[in-house]
Amino acid sequence: MKNLKLASREIAQRTVVNVAGVEIGRDFVVIAGPCSVESEEQTLETARAVKAAGADMMRGGAFKPRTSPYSFQGLGIAGLKILEKAKKETGLPIVTEVIDPRDVTWVAEFADVLQIGTRNMQNYSLLKEVGRAGRPVLLKRGMYSTLEEWLNCAEYILSEGNPDVILCERGIRTFEKYTRNTLDLSAVPAMKELTHLPVIIDPTHSTGRVSLIGPMSLASVAAGADGLLVEVHHNPEQALCDAEQALTPEQFKQIMNRLRPLKAFIDQQEKSEVI
Amino acid sequence: MKNLKLASREIAQRTVVNVAGVEIGRDFVVIAGPCSVESEEQTLETARAVKAAGADMMRGGAFKPRTSPYSFQGLGIAGLKILEKAKKETGLPIVTEVIDPRDVTWVAEFADVLQIGTRNMQNYSLLKEVGRAGRPVLLKRGMYSTLEEWLNCAEYILSEGNPDVILCERGIRTFEKYTRNTLDLSAVPAMKELTHLPVIIDPTHSTGRVSLIGPMSLASVAAGADGLLVEVHHNPEQALCDAEQALTPEQFKQIMNRLRPLKAFIDQQEKSEVI
Amino acid sequence: MKNLKLASREIAQRTVVNVAGVEIGRDFVVIAGPCSVESEEQTLETARAVKAAGADMMRGGAFKPRTSPYSFQGLGIAGLKILEKAKKETGLPIVTEVIDPRDVTWVAEFADVLQIGTRNMQNYSLLKEVGRAGRPVLLKRGMYSTLEEWLNCAEYILSEGNPDVILCERGIRTFEKYTRNTLDLSAVPAMKELTHLPVIIDPTHSTGRVSLIGPMSLASVAAGADGLLVEVHHNPEQALCDAEQALTPEQFKQIMNRLRPLKAFIDQQEKSEVI
Amino acid sequence: MKNLKLASREIAQRTVVNVAGVEIGRDFVVIAGPCSVESEEQTLETARAVKAAGADMMRGGAFKPRTSPYSFQGLGIAGLKILEKAKKETGLPIVTEVIDPRDVTWVAEFADVLQIGTRNMQNYSLLKEVGRAGRPVLLKRGMYSTLEEWLNCAEYILSEGNPDVILCERGIRTFEKYTRNTLDLSAVPAMKELTHLPVIIDPTHSTGRVSLIGPMSLASVAAGADGLLVEVHHNPEQALCDAEQALTPEQFKQIMNRLRPLKAFIDQQEKSEVI
Repeated sequence: MKNLKLASREIAQRTVVNVAGVEIGRDFVVIAGPCSVESEEQTLETARAVKAAGADMMRGGAFKPRTSPYSFQGLGIAGLKILEKAKKETGLPIVTEVIDPRDVTWVAEFADVLQIGTRNMQNYSLLKEVGRAGRPVLLKRGMYSTLEEWLNCAEYILSEGNPDVILCERGIRTFEKYTRNTLDLSAVPAMKELTHLPVIIDPTHSTGRVSLIGPMSLASVAAGADGLLVEVHHNPEQALCDAEQALTPEQFKQIMNRLRPLKAFIDQQEKSEVI
Repeated sequence: MKNLKLASREIAQRTVVNVAGVEIGRDFVVIAGPCSVESEEQTLETARAVKAAGADMMRGGAFKPRTSPYSFQGLGIAGLKILEKAKKETGLPIVTEVIDPRDVTWVAEFADVLQIGTRNMQNYSLLKEVGRAGRPVLLKRGMYSTLEEWLNCAEYILSEGNPDVILCERGIRTFEKYTRNTLDLSAVPAMKELTHLPVIIDPTHSTGRVSLIGPMSLASVAAGADGLLVEVHHNPEQALCDAEQALTPEQFKQIMNRLRPLKAFIDQQEKSEVI
Repeated sequence: MKNLKLASREIAQRTVVNVAGVEIGRDFVVIAGPCSVESEEQTLETARAVKAAGADMMRGGAFKPRTSPYSFQGLGIAGLKILEKAKKETGLPIVTEVIDPRDVTWVAEFADVLQIGTRNMQNYSLLKEVGRAGRPVLLKRGMYSTLEEWLNCAEYILSEGNPDVILCERGIRTFEKYTRNTLDLSAVPAMKELTHLPVIIDPTHSTGRVSLIGPMSLASVAAGADGLLVEVHHNPEQALCDAEQALTPEQFKQIMNRLRPLKAFIDQQEKSEVI
Repeated sequence: MKNLKLASREIAQRTVVNVAGVEIGRDFVVIAGPCSVESEEQTLETARAVKAAGADMMRGGAFKPRTSPYSFQGLGIAGLKILEKAKKETGLPIVTEVIDPRDVTWVAEFADVLQIGTRNMQNYSLLKEVGRAGRPVLLKRGMYSTLEEWLNCAEYILSEGNPDVILCERGIRTFEKYTRNTLDLSAVPAMKELTHLPVIIDPTHSTGRVSLIGPMSLASVAAGADGLLVEVHHNPEQALCDAEQALTPEQFKQIMNRLRPLKAFIDQQEKSEVI
């Protein structure tokens, strides 16, 4: 694609992003946790549960970009400190969103991976800032953006000197109303031919329905994704956001039980014959 | 969903459509062949190739709904006779599109399955006619239609007395330009909870790119689809339509080599634990 | 646009479609009436009201393509006979939809203009049939189709020998939920540079809200549209379809009172200076 | 709409935003100028031309959010100083975009109105900052956002204490390719019933075609818009961005010659009868 330099597949075959030993782009990486950090109890309980089920990293939002200014906006620094505790206890690296360029430096002290949310994909000031933060960046696709625009946003980060960008497809906005968004799973093989960066799938925000998360997680493995970003809450009914789409720890465990063996099977197939 | 009676999941768990022994909804069924029947040689060669690679049924269009009135519109009855020959030789049942209610009765003489294309999904006269044709119907999703509208179109067919409807997701129209359409793979598990009818995937028209067909075929299996409808041409470069998206027989064979073992693996997983 | 021959602006400046003396493409033409013909009383009352308010033609559906097979599908021939009576009394030419190629010939006996609905825009069998029917055709834009596809459908009709095609923009499907569809008013000047055919606007189905019909009707005049197709019902609350979007005769009259003077003003502006 | 407090129509009939005597929401206000400030000569020449043609305010970007990091990103403070000169000479108030919350305070020293671009509509940190900047804000609709989301973003600004928000519809992203975006003109009367804030139209970015700007500007007046934001460049062929969609001063003048009389005519109509 025109304009692309550092993100282009032409300059590398594949990038492996190393986060405290977790190798995104080599291993199949599962990042799980609540939409937002609500309390120490909720976060620690969920952290233990996803760790036990085999998650590689933990997600949790301390800053929540919400449609309404009157909705819960996250706990801020208090939330980050809770995440720090959860990391200490479980050893799981932390993925957390940053929404303001002025916060990047200090949030990076708590985060192993800085997440850029779908509404901020084209927030270029923020992209430039995380490009200089010395932390891997998980860049969500804008719900309204083309693959080309998405890659150019990765380019914004890479061109500031940060080579560690993880792309995350989280559904695009269409006319369909049964699902929250439409998961564009074909973005995985498409991105694999356009860029060397790892691509993971968010089956939670894309479908918005607990019942669809399992099948689409398996499909993500088969499509060649490098991992998943999935919402788990120890008590979804009381979640302060996205209550209707968070998995219980038990549901998450059931999906995990199938993911790794499927991934192993797919890899074996690929070794013996290339599609 | 409101208004649904016969198509609703509430009245049955699953429907198996039997086409000359091929059981769609029980087996994973692969329907392959050219976009349009162009010549006897082309059709027979492709038929032999897809048969050899393990296809269960053959597709091929004798009536092509084309954007421009000046594009190749299909061979009509001559095309159907060629398909008949291909069937005689290979034993593969035939799936072919019908676009005019006046043609349904006689096209049904040649077809094992009548296909309703994406542009005709809401052609209610045609739906009613195929509802009385005594042949299974493959109903493609309108490229612009919601799951609810699609199911209501199935209801049109069922309510005329024809219980054998196969749903086929073929991509929806979005703003993305890299792919021809956006494959809505989450429609598979979504439809599985809304209806008892089998759901197959068309990875060809949805992606419009040969390179994406393999990964999305595997993903379809993992998502729980009941089969695939895929374009294969013995010489894609000379195809009269969709030249850029048809698989060669060799590419098709490579995908087939992985599909069945993957399906067996997925089934085994499902048996031991339910997501 | 490629493939276009007869519909292209390159072959003519403008086409005027003459319907019983009403000149679409020269005059600003208002076509009004109920979504569907429900009864003689409803149709005659509405016909008198729209005539009194200054409508040039009357619309009313005898065949209704409905999402569900269990919804009211129209009165069929009984509806056409009611329209005939309304025409006899008011003198208003009749615009009515045809949805089955087998009905075109006899429906054309009742209709002054044959309407092709949005769901049938790419029903090519139907397009070819109305192309041979000897009656002007009002071709609605598919709710999912590009200007190029729409023009190619006009080409299907023209290429069968019927030069009298009126294009009608009726809103496209987007993510916005406040309106029923999104009225693409820029399609008017766009089509004026691509084709010589007249273009009218349906402010009813595009907005789906009574309160928006007045402003968008005025905007249609200013954008250069050749007319309007608008739903009026003598008692909207009891309408069998589209109850929430039909104007009362009184509302219609108020809009009409502003349309003609505005059109005269716009025409005068255009004469003295060209944009 | 739920969650709305300060932006809701329920709390006020209409807001008039006063910018150095220009009353947006009462007068029909035309804001014109180049996409980006490129040089003193270009800016001053264009400023003089739009002033002479009757523009009320001047637009010009010093910070440009561009798809690629390698595209021209604007002159920054040097650009703002050029705008200051243009204002000094012509007396036209300045509308200019701000893209980073850290820049709001000092950019507000130069700007009469702070513009939030379509990509930053949901950049909540930025919204809160301009909500405290003591300057009117022109809030563009996200190309992917619903009216409800847009209003909630206005609410973010209002809830910080800034009552002066001007909404600007600039086209939404759809499948149509002939136009750059699809202008949702029905957003004008829709917003008029949902909020008391003024609504203006950007016919340039929505259509992306010089030939459509005139007709859609007139249509905006008829739809009830409070003004226009339009790109004018003294030499469009050499513009550093959006070269294909900027009006020449002469084209702008021709449109202006029709706008004011049309607005006067529409206002007179409204006085004598209400739609």
